[in-house]
Amino acid sequence: MTTPQSQPNDELTLTTSDARIQELLERMNEIADLGAMNALLAWDQNTALPDGAGEVRGAQLATIEGVLHERQTAARIGELLGELESVVASAPYTDADRGLVRETRRSYDQATKLPAGLVQEMARVGAASFDAWRRARTHNDFAQFAPWLGKTITLQREVADRLRTPGQASRYDALLDLYEPGMTSERLDALFGPIREVSVATLQRIQQSGHTIDASCLEGDFPADSQVALSRELLTGIGYDFNNGGIAISPHPFTTSFGSPFDVRVTVRPDPKFLQAALMAAVHEGGHAVYEQGSDKRLARSPLAGGASLGAHESQSRLWENAIGRSEAFWQGQYDKVKAAYPQQYANVDVATFARALNTVRPSLIRVEADEVTYNLHIIVRYEMEKAMVNGEVAVESLPGKWNGMYQEYLGVEPPTDARGIMQDIHWTSGFGYFPTYTLGNLYAAQIYATLRQTFPDFDERLAAGDTSFVLNWLRERMYAVGSVYQPEQLIERVTGEKPNPDYFRRYLTEKFAKVYDLAG
Amino acid sequence: MTTPQSQPNDELTLTTSDARIQELLERMNEIADLGAMNALLAWDQNTALPDGAGEVRGAQLATIEGVLHERQTAARIGELLGELESVVASAPYTDADRGLVRETRRSYDQATKLPAGLVQEMARVGAASFDAWRRARTHNDFAQFAPWLGKTITLQREVADRLRTPGQASRYDALLDLYEPGMTSERLDALFGPIREVSVATLQRIQQSGHTIDASCLEGDFPADSQVALSRELLTGIGYDFNNGGIAISPHPFTTSFGSPFDVRVTVRPDPKFLQAALMAAVHEGGHAVYEQGSDKRLARSPLAGGASLGAHESQSRLWENAIGRSEAFWQGQYDKVKAAYPQQYANVDVATFARALNTVRPSLIRVEADEVTYNLHIIVRYEMEKAMVNGEVAVESLPGKWNGMYQEYLGVEPPTDARGIMQDIHWTSGFGYFPTYTLGNLYAAQIYATLRQTFPDFDERLAAGDTSFVLNWLRERMYAVGSVYQPEQLIERVTGEKPNPDYFRRYLTEKFAKVYDLAG
Repeated sequence: MTTPQSQPNDELTLTTSDARIQELLERMNEIADLGAMNALLAWDQNTALPDGAGEVRGAQLATIEGVLHERQTAARIGELLGELESVVASAPYTDADRGLVRETRRSYDQATKLPAGLVQEMARVGAASFDAWRRARTHNDFAQFAPWLGKTITLQREVADRLRTPGQASRYDALLDLYEPGMTSERLDALFGPIREVSVATLQRIQQSGHTIDASCLEGDFPADSQVALSRELLTGIGYDFNNGGIAISPHPFTTSFGSPFDVRVTVRPDPKFLQAALMAAVHEGGHAVYEQGSDKRLARSPLAGGASLGAHESQSRLWENAIGRSEAFWQGQYDKVKAAYPQQYANVDVATFARALNTVRPSLIRVEADEVTYNLHIIVRYEMEKAMVNGEVAVESLPGKWNGMYQEYLGVEPPTDARGIMQDIHWTSGFGYFPTYTLGNLYAAQIYATLRQTFPDFDERLAAGDTSFVLNWLRERMYAVGSVYQPEQLIERVTGEKPNPDYFRRYLTEKFAKVYDLAG
Repeated sequence: MTTPQSQPNDELTLTTSDARIQELLERMNEIADLGAMNALLAWDQNTALPDGAGEVRGAQLATIEGVLHERQTAARIGELLGELESVVASAPYTDADRGLVRETRRSYDQATKLPAGLVQEMARVGAASFDAWRRARTHNDFAQFAPWLGKTITLQREVADRLRTPGQASRYDALLDLYEPGMTSERLDALFGPIREVSVATLQRIQQSGHTIDASCLEGDFPADSQVALSRELLTGIGYDFNNGGIAISPHPFTTSFGSPFDVRVTVRPDPKFLQAALMAAVHEGGHAVYEQGSDKRLARSPLAGGASLGAHESQSRLWENAIGRSEAFWQGQYDKVKAAYPQQYANVDVATFARALNTVRPSLIRVEADEVTYNLHIIVRYEMEKAMVNGEVAVESLPGKWNGMYQEYLGVEPPTDARGIMQDIHWTSGFGYFPTYTLGNLYAAQIYATLRQTFPDFDERLAAGDTSFVLNWLRERMYAVGSVYQPEQLIERVTGEKPNPDYFRRYLTEKFAKVYDLAG
């Protein structure tokens, strides 16, 4: 086994012998605790809150947000940052110190640059926009949603203007930076171009081959309880630690942390007729969760605990879900769990058939149902539209036409309704800049996956033997332990030896689906 | 049907046209929200927290306590109270205004009179005492617990000295007032004397009769899931509203509120071999919960939402659990649910046998297993000992002997070990003054129950027909809606037309057990 280049250990130790680091850390500990409470309120809201408690829960969330904002904008934090920023670059300060100062600066600037009135207006418009979106989607009437989308565009531009630094080339870059620190649209354009090309090309090759996959083995009767139990086993199978976690049911699967690495929980949502949904959601959320559970304990209760960015996070959910969790090798090691849970359903289904069924490609209208080949095309449509909305002068009424045109061009499908088109996602009820992190995640995942396979020549054999711990340990040591001490691009370079490079995803997608769809020749 | 004297409606409206009431209310809203978060952290800790998250959860609880204390001691609250206390007694101020000022004064004084160092020391000693108690109980070694009990006595005396007002006759009265506002040991002595007498006398008459009850129908195999489902049905049966509630499993059953009346939840703990535990716990916690769910919405997010005191709260859990929930009439209306859940177990058990089994009297060593006849004797032992510890100069080593002597005298049993004697309860790891509220609850419950039976001459017939809503509606209108607008003694007088009077409990116990144990003659 290749020994990975491990993290220089003392770089994760905060220099608390400096009273200023200590004081900043204590303040950020309190802020982290309040953030954990916010997360607990939201978790409870999604898993247990009674129907009649929505309003009082809203008031509680507003109260904790108020306390958080008060703490985040404390003038003393600004003073400490001012002093520390002038010394932290050199010895004896560690990477953790620099990360703490950088991440605190981010949250301090975000909290202080946006006036309270703007934040309240965003919350108000967000709630009203969400309501309008729900109604508009139900009635397939974009005109009901359009004015709220217009208001969101106006507000997001104001946010961008307030947050934008001299180094950021556009408003959109200022929003991007909220979710993927350091990312720019110039860089995204360069990364996403090759991804769009390979996705369109792979889709066409599959369609032209005429080959299809029989995925009927994933349909049947799967009682919710048994799916939760099986999800537990798969989570345990990939190394998720229930001693620092838990599982619940919610309308949409998600992962949340109430203090990484100690308390990281996931949800699933069983579909009683279709096994794939809960199963792959468990592995996907498990990927997010093992990332959070892998943070070094020294970073706990600081802004450095947990993932480096949304893109870095998504890289781990996608790595575990897609690169690993949809591979035949993985299922050779895990399929017994499925067979034990549903002995009749899978008596006559071999593991190759099962694993292949999980990789069915079918261009569709709906992002959240998309396969690996088409998923990024859904994202790139949204990315192009977001740039136009935030940087350009696009008329809101023209957006559905623009959307439909790009779906036709990239995916070869045309939404019959706006409900199944531009209004399918919740994201634009609140803001812009989030979507690209999904595709960044896929790109990072492919690059990390290539490094893993190069590091472990017997990668498939070990997975097939039921072992996943060698993957988890390697990722923990190289990536998870450092939390958000490093910014995403630097982190990817540390883990893989190279800056983010779309070639890995190109090769991954081409080779994988050539095999799955038997496209040789 | 007798129409109950309903609450003058406008007395529950806060006079927010007075800017000072409005400002005080807004501050108390924020404090209520932070309190709800505290409760949510604790609920999660008891129902879902992973084993590895204890330490980080402790830090989060400390953080929220810190913010709460900061908000509770704001000097502005003291100013507002000063101004309002001089005007609030007369028109146009309402009972709710007076309640708000009174309850805010209570929490403000408690928070400001106890220095932060003392509060921290109490938390530290409490945690260490809990650990020592657990070990000492396991090893039946009182000597391990004794020094921590000694420290708790010292700290509780200091708390009492700091909180005690000129009107309070003893240190113990200052502690009592924390849990039962306005209660004194002089008053408790007068109330508890008759209760001790009737309990001892009833126990002796049962024992001398030689009559016994066959409770074997409560033993068997009862899967946990089915007990939770049955608990749900019984909760619904007494009017608990799942639209503003929820149920979970925890090691000890409890009720909690994250904002009454909107979000009030309960837990149960099924015993797989003994149906009575979860069943009666569900009705007991349901009693606490319907009280909280009955608060008038105008009081929400204020210190006036929810029960008036621990004694008032316990009166409702006991009323529903014992007076109603252990009556044959109640089970005539609800027994079908039990039979449907366990058709084989109860095929040949009639409702009278089932209901009678729930009323078995057996003097025991353990409070939480005690029946209605002996329960208050357990409490009175603790009450006498607490007074001695707080007011007197008792040597800690002499406490087990004192305990055992009283058990022999009141209950006719002598603890073979301190683990099953003085160390059985968790309460003394943190403080004194809580126990008496259990017996006060029984006393209030009997008095309210007598009023209910007088108000509804067809009380038993309606219960037997499966109707409990007439009870709930009456209680809501007279008692639950007003939350803690009135202090407990005044509240009992409003509900029953009389100050707390132990005669009702005396008659209740005597008559009920004469019938249950066939003691006629």
